[in-house]
Amino acid sequence: MAARAREQDVIFRPHFKTHQSVVVADWFRQEGATRITVSSVAMAQYFVKAGWNDITIAFPVNLLEIDEINKLNSEINLNLLIESEESATFLATHSAFDCGFFIKIDTGYHRTGIEAINIPLIDRVLKAANSPNLHFKGFLTHSGQSYHAADTQELERIQHSAAGIMLRLKKHYQEQFPGIILSVGDTPICSQLPVVAGIDEIRPGNFVFYDIMQFALGSCKLDEIAVALVCPVVALHLNRKEAVIYGGAIHLSKEQALLPPDPEPLYGLIFSWDGKNWNTGNLLGKVSALSQEHGIVSLTQVGCNLKPGDLVAVLPVHSCLTAQLMRSYVDLQGQLIETMNS
Amino acid sequence: MAARAREQDVIFRPHFKTHQSVVVADWFRQEGATRITVSSVAMAQYFVKAGWNDITIAFPVNLLEIDEINKLNSEINLNLLIESEESATFLATHSAFDCGFFIKIDTGYHRTGIEAINIPLIDRVLKAANSPNLHFKGFLTHSGQSYHAADTQELERIQHSAAGIMLRLKKHYQEQFPGIILSVGDTPICSQLPVVAGIDEIRPGNFVFYDIMQFALGSCKLDEIAVALVCPVVALHLNRKEAVIYGGAIHLSKEQALLPPDPEPLYGLIFSWDGKNWNTGNLLGKVSALSQEHGIVSLTQVGCNLKPGDLVAVLPVHSCLTAQLMRSYVDLQGQLIETMNS
Repeated sequence: MAARAREQDVIFRPHFKTHQSVVVADWFRQEGATRITVSSVAMAQYFVKAGWNDITIAFPVNLLEIDEINKLNSEINLNLLIESEESATFLATHSAFDCGFFIKIDTGYHRTGIEAINIPLIDRVLKAANSPNLHFKGFLTHSGQSYHAADTQELERIQHSAAGIMLRLKKHYQEQFPGIILSVGDTPICSQLPVVAGIDEIRPGNFVFYDIMQFALGSCKLDEIAVALVCPVVALHLNRKEAVIYGGAIHLSKEQALLPPDPEPLYGLIFSWDGKNWNTGNLLGKVSALSQEHGIVSLTQVGCNLKPGDLVAVLPVHSCLTAQLMRSYVDLQGQLIETMNS
Repeated sequence: MAARAREQDVIFRPHFKTHQSVVVADWFRQEGATRITVSSVAMAQYFVKAGWNDITIAFPVNLLEIDEINKLNSEINLNLLIESEESATFLATHSAFDCGFFIKIDTGYHRTGIEAINIPLIDRVLKAANSPNLHFKGFLTHSGQSYHAADTQELERIQHSAAGIMLRLKKHYQEQFPGIILSVGDTPICSQLPVVAGIDEIRPGNFVFYDIMQFALGSCKLDEIAVALVCPVVALHLNRKEAVIYGGAIHLSKEQALLPPDPEPLYGLIFSWDGKNWNTGNLLGKVSALSQEHGIVSLTQVGCNLKPGDLVAVLPVHSCLTAQLMRSYVDLQGQLIETMNS
């Protein structure tokens, strides 16, 4: 992803919410990353301690954390997201240092952000944010609707629609605010499509591990998924071709994916584990249901050789949530990789 | 629940996986509880440190934890769950102390357990477990299908079907194993129905907090839900009657519930918060979608007065998962309640 950003001459500001680890962050540094994205003030604080000093908190600013934000901003280059006049007014009064901000734009996902056609509201936000302690950096969007794209053509339509919206905004405001940038970033689009000309920054995060959801979306191959949850088999019910693993909602999360032609959602794919690595050539089954600590595995024929006490590797549906829940992981040499949650 | 158990003269062995806290556990002790249920070896170790000495690990035994199990068993009265000949054979050889065990029976949930009609397999398990270091305590089931009951009549049918299966097993084996007990336990049945005569032990857990799922099932009233996640409002989109809260899948889990007549699933109900308590008389909306850290709230009219920086209380769909994710909580006096995950 770093190479793609370099080739396309865009700022690479990877989202660190997937791995949440200063160890993994160092691998990014080795690839030249100096600017990062996080999803919370606490995550920013964690990475600041490890020397990261240019951070965008890509989450609508939580006004109740103003003291922590001011402290962070006294130490590093910090960017916040604003999407309301109320938040802009509050920060204009309460920001103690020159703080960068992006205006969050809704380009079709309809989760957060101001609709780009709402120029009057954008103008009011910019007016409210007119303060020596606030510095308008540009427009930021997350085209999360890409996670529902049926195929590459639909992904392209989503990308071009979003980019068009962003480019029109830049054109509208660039005279008033020279140098403002356009920031986009979601792993499906960043993995599968070149950046649209005029976009300045990408912020993908999930690609560091990928997962079954990204595999289902065509963003990665199965053997590019870089994180697995190794679980013991605790029970077998071969009459219904099922195994039970010690690995449930508190380990994997309850995130589901669909892998057509299977009409039923799944919570993970199960592969053999040899004690050091998993083998994506050896599918043992899928996690078909989850309780708090139980995973129910629908077995393939080859999976029916399992017995209690065997270990299997689960490729998770959503690696961000699994990594968050597990709090730390080990690399293939058995070295512990700590995270902010360890 | 303790009073219900006393009145019905059954053993009360509450499941502590919901709260996972020695502080809350003390409240149970004040109600006379001395025997408890947990869902993992780690959870047993945590409660042993706080003086609990009669523990059932209600999860199919993980053979890879035999050393930890032997250590626990050297300190307290421990009961394991066995549901296969392989696990029984392994424990007969590897259990270092007299360890209690229940045979897990599938009474219709089809998650784990031996089908009660499979007497040959139960006989083989009992034969394999015939060791001075293993002690057969009885049969245990979890009628998790109660979570899908449409009404009290269906709940009663589930309860009586499961109890009938268990009572027939007891009758079959009580001459060979005098004093064996029948253990059941799920919060919907234990909350809504009297215990069936002949059942010896109940193991409900979720009732300590209850949640929206239990409310939907009729196990509790809204104002009997004892845990809420207080979240800041970070954005408002009144054109679509939505708010965004800082409270997502990593806080609430992605567990869903249905509250008819609303045809759409929800991830939590939102009530007003006055800084000290929530008000179930003042519904502000429902969490209609979740990302990693975002919750999207569909607002009622009254919720439309919210502004960024306001706090709201979310009653979670599944309190066990929310408590696990949050790792600690505060009581209404602001006192921190630590858990094994703190």
